[in-house]
Amino acid sequence: MRVNLLVGGPQSLIPVDQVKSRQAETWIAVDHGTTLLLKWGIKPAVAIGDFDSTSAAEMKIVKDQLAEIELFPPAKDFTDTQLGVKLAIERYQPTQIDIFGATGGRLDHLLANLFLPLQSAYQDYLDRIRLIDRGNTVTYYRPGKYAVTKEAGMKYLAFVNLTPVTHLTLTDEKYPLQDWSSTIPISWTSNEFVGTVNHFSFASGVVAVIQCRDLPLQ
Amino acid sequence: MRVNLLVGGPQSLIPVDQVKSRQAETWIAVDHGTTLLLKWGIKPAVAIGDFDSTSAAEMKIVKDQLAEIELFPPAKDFTDTQLGVKLAIERYQPTQIDIFGATGGRLDHLLANLFLPLQSAYQDYLDRIRLIDRGNTVTYYRPGKYAVTKEAGMKYLAFVNLTPVTHLTLTDEKYPLQDWSSTIPISWTSNEFVGTVNHFSFASGVVAVIQCRDLPLQ
Repeated sequence: MRVNLLVGGPQSLIPVDQVKSRQAETWIAVDHGTTLLLKWGIKPAVAIGDFDSTSAAEMKIVKDQLAEIELFPPAKDFTDTQLGVKLAIERYQPTQIDIFGATGGRLDHLLANLFLPLQSAYQDYLDRIRLIDRGNTVTYYRPGKYAVTKEAGMKYLAFVNLTPVTHLTLTDEKYPLQDWSSTIPISWTSNEFVGTVNHFSFASGVVAVIQCRDLPLQ
Repeated sequence: MRVNLLVGGPQSLIPVDQVKSRQAETWIAVDHGTTLLLKWGIKPAVAIGDFDSTSAAEMKIVKDQLAEIELFPPAKDFTDTQLGVKLAIERYQPTQIDIFGATGGRLDHLLANLFLPLQSAYQDYLDRIRLIDRGNTVTYYRPGKYAVTKEAGMKYLAFVNLTPVTHLTLTDEKYPLQDWSSTIPISWTSNEFVGTVNHFSFASGVVAVIQCRDLPLQ
């Protein structure tokens, strides 16, 4: 089964239509994401977090509507998103974990979300976790050979080694790359698909693949 | 001297007052940042990029106003921001390089900007480069012992090892950390200053320090 999380990032980056289309699926609401989900007519299975960005009035609505709220103190060892993904894994052992609202706003939060699948607690689920916002989809790969399929509406394809990487090879993309290794992270931006399925491989490290598009500048 | 860059990220994340207050300083405009700078009454020393997000009408104004434009084709080996920082270094050997407009929008761009100081071409300037947006200031550190000073208006302090790191120690922050090593990147979010100057040290790797604050959710 697929479990969706809505985290408390800026609403302007959340693909609301996509979220609403998954109303019948299982949702976990993280922090201020709870208020947004309820506004969009989605009742999450559970809400989790410190709710430090939720007002008293909003919190009353959350408590009235939800059977299960896991309240944590702000000074804890895990971020709210980490708590939400942990709960998703322990309760559902999902085949897919899609995280919305994880981008924008504070860069320390964005990076904690981006790096989350690398941590040992989540590593087994690394290839099942996606970060999704209006302009970007991030997926994660362990060493191996892969085919990637172009998402409708996305234009660019980027490869980012989040750790040291060896022998990264982009076989049939618009800008190929041959047997590239690096001790530092690099974001290979603005590559593009040739056709709808392209291939890549690498021998060690963790690589994130980002499919993205330009949003109107605001 | 300090050189400022304005990159073509979303305007909503650019601290416009801060940019305008530096009108008399040296500016390099990158891509669509050129149009914004001119709108704010700042004439950059040079504009650089592929200008693929600049309209024909905007490009005419840029050409009328600026003596020097370095136009690159979109399919090049460097991102527009990389070209801008390269030019800043070669022409000015600055003591400080502040990059505005480098966040928001496409995640592949954001990560390319974030990882830029780690690349060999920029490494000598690593500790002189800052990324600045309305809610975040990112600075970079090589192994050593450091004091960090709290920025006015910022609330949180985050430490992010962008590469494997050894012996990271946060001495006197709100949440101390003792002799921590990691092969994967982690964003230690939501730490806070105790007083206005705090200390940290590490033995190998590159660490980014992010001072940040919550912006109103939009």
